[in-house]
Amino acid sequence: MSQLPRFWNLGWSSFLDWWSNSPVVSEQESSPLYGQQQLNETFLDHGEGQQFLTKAFQVILEEVLCKGTDVKEKVCDWREPEDLAALLDLELRENGESQHQLLKRVQDVAKYSVKTNHPRFFNQLFAGVDYHALAGRFLTEALNTSQYTYEVAPVFVLMEEEVLSKLRSLVGWTHGDGIFCPGGTVSNMYAMNLARFRAFPEVKVKGQWALPRLAVFASQESHYSVMKAAAFQGIGTENVFKVNVDDRGCMNPEDLCEKIELAKSQGAVPFFVHATSGTTVKGAFDPLESIADICERLGLWMHVDAAWGGSVLLSNEHRHLMKGVERADSVTWNPHKMMLTGLQCSAILLKDTTDLLKHCHCADATYLFQQDKFYDKSLDTGDKSIQCGRKVDCLKLWLMWKAVGSKGLEGRVDRAFAHVRYKPPRPIPEFVNVCFWFIPPSLRGDENSPDYQDRLSKVAPTIKERMMKQGTMMVGYQPHGGRVNFFRMIVISPQVSHEDMTFFLDEIERLGKDL
Amino acid sequence: MSQLPRFWNLGWSSFLDWWSNSPVVSEQESSPLYGQQQLNETFLDHGEGQQFLTKAFQVILEEVLCKGTDVKEKVCDWREPEDLAALLDLELRENGESQHQLLKRVQDVAKYSVKTNHPRFFNQLFAGVDYHALAGRFLTEALNTSQYTYEVAPVFVLMEEEVLSKLRSLVGWTHGDGIFCPGGTVSNMYAMNLARFRAFPEVKVKGQWALPRLAVFASQESHYSVMKAAAFQGIGTENVFKVNVDDRGCMNPEDLCEKIELAKSQGAVPFFVHATSGTTVKGAFDPLESIADICERLGLWMHVDAAWGGSVLLSNEHRHLMKGVERADSVTWNPHKMMLTGLQCSAILLKDTTDLLKHCHCADATYLFQQDKFYDKSLDTGDKSIQCGRKVDCLKLWLMWKAVGSKGLEGRVDRAFAHVRYKPPRPIPEFVNVCFWFIPPSLRGDENSPDYQDRLSKVAPTIKERMMKQGTMMVGYQPHGGRVNFFRMIVISPQVSHEDMTFFLDEIERLGKDL
Repeated sequence: MSQLPRFWNLGWSSFLDWWSNSPVVSEQESSPLYGQQQLNETFLDHGEGQQFLTKAFQVILEEVLCKGTDVKEKVCDWREPEDLAALLDLELRENGESQHQLLKRVQDVAKYSVKTNHPRFFNQLFAGVDYHALAGRFLTEALNTSQYTYEVAPVFVLMEEEVLSKLRSLVGWTHGDGIFCPGGTVSNMYAMNLARFRAFPEVKVKGQWALPRLAVFASQESHYSVMKAAAFQGIGTENVFKVNVDDRGCMNPEDLCEKIELAKSQGAVPFFVHATSGTTVKGAFDPLESIADICERLGLWMHVDAAWGGSVLLSNEHRHLMKGVERADSVTWNPHKMMLTGLQCSAILLKDTTDLLKHCHCADATYLFQQDKFYDKSLDTGDKSIQCGRKVDCLKLWLMWKAVGSKGLEGRVDRAFAHVRYKPPRPIPEFVNVCFWFIPPSLRGDENSPDYQDRLSKVAPTIKERMMKQGTMMVGYQPHGGRVNFFRMIVISPQVSHEDMTFFLDEIERLGKDL
Repeated sequence: MSQLPRFWNLGWSSFLDWWSNSPVVSEQESSPLYGQQQLNETFLDHGEGQQFLTKAFQVILEEVLCKGTDVKEKVCDWREPEDLAALLDLELRENGESQHQLLKRVQDVAKYSVKTNHPRFFNQLFAGVDYHALAGRFLTEALNTSQYTYEVAPVFVLMEEEVLSKLRSLVGWTHGDGIFCPGGTVSNMYAMNLARFRAFPEVKVKGQWALPRLAVFASQESHYSVMKAAAFQGIGTENVFKVNVDDRGCMNPEDLCEKIELAKSQGAVPFFVHATSGTTVKGAFDPLESIADICERLGLWMHVDAAWGGSVLLSNEHRHLMKGVERADSVTWNPHKMMLTGLQCSAILLKDTTDLLKHCHCADATYLFQQDKFYDKSLDTGDKSIQCGRKVDCLKLWLMWKAVGSKGLEGRVDRAFAHVRYKPPRPIPEFVNVCFWFIPPSLRGDENSPDYQDRLSKVAPTIKERMMKQGTMMVGYQPHGGRVNFFRMIVISPQVSHEDMTFFLDEIERLGKDL
């Protein structure tokens, strides 16, 4: 250090010595806590850290992955919130704890968390585990980089493009664009923002003030993210026109036309149709061909929210459910749902080849996206994002795909359908959502009594409470569109067996037979 | 199953048999691929999966955590994009691969990725590794749940609130609200949206059309997320008024007043002041007390973007840099930066106690946020979010805090400052960003030649290219505010020793001495 000449020039000052031989700060200016010796000592003990991590890995393997997928074990070990808070000893204190105590904490967190990998977790759209995806997730966490430049994420910049391109090819596009987002709602927000920008490029600089009142169209069964997007992006929830659906929950294209006329008659400018492939509750698929006809005729952006249903594109047998998807402008697809990559993995896919994504979102930060880099700067894809730092979401999907191949993924989708259809309820569900009421003995034959609906509405919550407290399985319920509380069973997980399906029905009956 | 009586009622149909004794579907309706026997077989081999995961964990330990933190190893093993793509064999195919081949892929991904845990990675604000946080991240991935209801995330609902409350207490608030977001940009977007909603609650339903033109204020040194937020939320980038800064990069409060008057004179309505604690390039801290005086006087929402600088609140010695932060309405703080929790961990903290966050963002989805649950439904915090599914980001921070305590975290912050200040450049940097030009021999004494700036601007990119290709370390550069390319060194990581700091300067000289 002592040989360093005076050639360091700090940006906002004149020439100076830096780390020159003699200290140039007073004791007061420098930190009183550290001398050179302390700064040379190791602050972080890698050996100890890695030992802890290895032990924690063993706990995860045993508690979450072995016990957590064992049908003889509980799906959840229910505790009342105040009891759980006390058990977990959540308070953060001045001093650290022993490794032994910390491992106990890892174990407790695992023990009292819901086992979403359990074959009898039918509660949400992200059940199940894939070990190759999980390995990809651990590797992603350990590498801890941000998906924005080739410089800091060389492997992942190339990999993201490959995975997106594969997903696009399943949609039916040979070219296009896209990006992984933190969840389907954000992916849907991207679509709405891109549509607005394509129709009114001045919105980015001038804001919504420069625009007429806009109108968005989505079915009554569409996901609530349409409303969140309209609120967040300054479009307003009252400017989302809800289109009627048929009995199965699919958008009625005639009503779409009527709603478009209605919006126009109110002085609003239609710009965005949000179709759904796989609605959240019923699993319905909107008729994409008819919707595409309307969008093409009127020059509207057609978005397909296939966050849930997109995986049917992997299946030769079932991809007809999304016939016409290639005519859309954008598609949301969440591999963290039926494809089992784990949370989060959501892609917004675009047909656009004009770099709309970048033009719409770029802010050209010079500290990140330098223009005089020594490699092709089109590889610095981060400015397509509304985020700055962005998690790497492609690796888990890529590694899983490498492990099972497109055929393996197809098999999973077909298997989920087969479970539902082996001896199916009537009408046969379009997808793998099975919605039903359990009619307990006391209500059977009572359909015409005036309080029937009211009494029926209390059945699912009571069964759910018993189920949670006993921990035998998990399934969701909801009221919906004038119908009182009913169960919605979701069948995804490749480890679900026919026995689990049988257990499910028996268990609902066991829990509700005295109601 | 055969005993099941006819009491299952599907929502959108009449009564029916479900899984009744005799099949009710034709061969054509049911999947041709699966019979009951196949559906009973195990589709997923947990033993094999767990074996693969264990081997992958060993690779991660060796390649990413041992080699990746070893100063004798490279920070990156640079490859040209086309070479890297070929090496990685990225294509996704019909068939899966052997476990052996897949492990090789894990190894390759690790090998060719940048080692952000390496002590000589000074390139970005998220350098370094904490093993307890990493254990928390692995556990989060394995548990794979979504942070939205107590039902599916009992531990994490309680834990998130505890962690947010601790962060708020460091800001100086005994009460308040908050949520973890996917990155600081999204946290900043939340602040802008909440401010707009507080000032004009009708915006959620009616959109920006019902509002006057709005005006946002942020310093010239503020992060580009302000612009991204204004564009995405329909406010418009031209309505972000950039406030002048002083030599250090701190907002000039007098100019803030002038810019507010300017906006008003243009007919825009000021509503949001975005102050920064720890700017991205210079590490400057805006004068929060003065800004708070102005915001209070004019009734403006005061947001503090402390994504980078927030960690000084952990240090008794350095928290004065954010004096006045308790007067803000909202604060962004990214523990994934200086606190080493790993990407992503970003909190938006709010002083509000009126449930503004929920009112602003809720969509009341009945399938998720049932109102007749058997536990306190205020624990279903997911509707505060603009997302639906949301990653669990609290566990890694909580476990790390339990491991090292507030004192341990304080020590890390103090140590980073001490590194920079031991024998500091002049003027002493306010924070741990050190910005400087390296003046190569050929340019020394040439300051007055007309092409000096032009030649100087080429020095950093050349050194950077050599550095990347040799893999010895990583540091960023950028032009900024009229200054040509200079280096920005970021000192965070607890494993950085004084020796690494010395190496850094020697290495820049070695790489640039012939320029």
